[in-house]
Amino acid sequence: MADEQSLGLRERKKLDTRRALSDAALELMLERGLENIVREDIAARAGVSVRTYNNYFSSKFEALAYRQIERGLRAADLLRERPAEEPLWTAITEAVIAPYDADGASWGPPTPAILAEVRKLVTAPEMYAAFMRGTGDEFTAAVAARTGTAPTDLYPKLVAAAVNAAFIAATDVYVHADPPQIVTTILRRALTEVSRGLPDPRV
Amino acid sequence: MADEQSLGLRERKKLDTRRALSDAALELMLERGLENIVREDIAARAGVSVRTYNNYFSSKFEALAYRQIERGLRAADLLRERPAEEPLWTAITEAVIAPYDADGASWGPPTPAILAEVRKLVTAPEMYAAFMRGTGDEFTAAVAARTGTAPTDLYPKLVAAAVNAAFIAATDVYVHADPPQIVTTILRRALTEVSRGLPDPRV
Repeated sequence: MADEQSLGLRERKKLDTRRALSDAALELMLERGLENIVREDIAARAGVSVRTYNNYFSSKFEALAYRQIERGLRAADLLRERPAEEPLWTAITEAVIAPYDADGASWGPPTPAILAEVRKLVTAPEMYAAFMRGTGDEFTAAVAARTGTAPTDLYPKLVAAAVNAAFIAATDVYVHADPPQIVTTILRRALTEVSRGLPDPRV
Repeated sequence: MADEQSLGLRERKKLDTRRALSDAALELMLERGLENIVREDIAARAGVSVRTYNNYFSSKFEALAYRQIERGLRAADLLRERPAEEPLWTAITEAVIAPYDADGASWGPPTPAILAEVRKLVTAPEMYAAFMRGTGDEFTAAVAARTGTAPTDLYPKLVAAAVNAAFIAATDVYVHADPPQIVTTILRRALTEVSRGLPDPRV
């Protein structure tokens, strides 16, 4: 993903199929409920065979997690493209928020019915592993490139893990918010707090 | 764990058994290698039946993860006991480091052979889920109590997730360090960076 123009047509098509399958899984989840979707439905909705589906994902949770993973990959790309003179955490915040904006997540809060499905999804134990497998390294590499550190150093790993922490905490607040709130509002607040060093709110 | 004195004898005995099983699992891992231990060995080493073992853990990874989870629970207890006037991140850092010190992790770097086993352990995909299930809520509650926020607020969730991020990044650096380093040295550095808002190292 880091250098999209250098990807061959074949690789590009693979990414498109992966994204289409993940979108189909999410659509079906919102229509029928998380517990009522199986891989046969997802493959059919995306217009591919179950065999093709199995080449991309080994569980429905992986398919459902992929949209979020793909947002993380896009964020890493965008971070590499932000102006070099921009303060690091401004660049990080804009790079992380932009894929949500592009997906329409900032247009308004979700309906309670949609939020109930998303809440089931993100609190499923299977999701931790699915998320964890897909993220982190690309973002760490982008932070390292930007800050003149090595991807094996503590610093870029820590920044990537802190951004992930902001995502985890913001998602947790988002899926339990009553009334529903816009996810990017919470995420932006979380990233700002992290960049301020999470000062004690009493002080 | 939050109020140890109020725990009944029965509950206390359960925690002791859980800890003994986890210690036995870690001892055996270091002696024989991660891939060569099964639950029968762990139960025998701890002097309990396999049936008892199965009441506490559903996989060897859960047993191996528990020492770390238990350190997180101790850290949450210690955070509640730190002086109220102490700056938040000083209190957090001391509370997180103390259980490692108590377990002897600060005495010196591990041998390369021990580190190789620990590296296999923490990079096993099964470990993410095992860690994730056991941590977070107690620490979030302790931060909330200390900072006058609600455990459902963004702030305490974010602090707990950021501490977890520091642990994840520090562990990753620790298990790949060559020559081996003391884990608490790296962890303390990570927590300091987080409390400083992870400023760009170039600036």
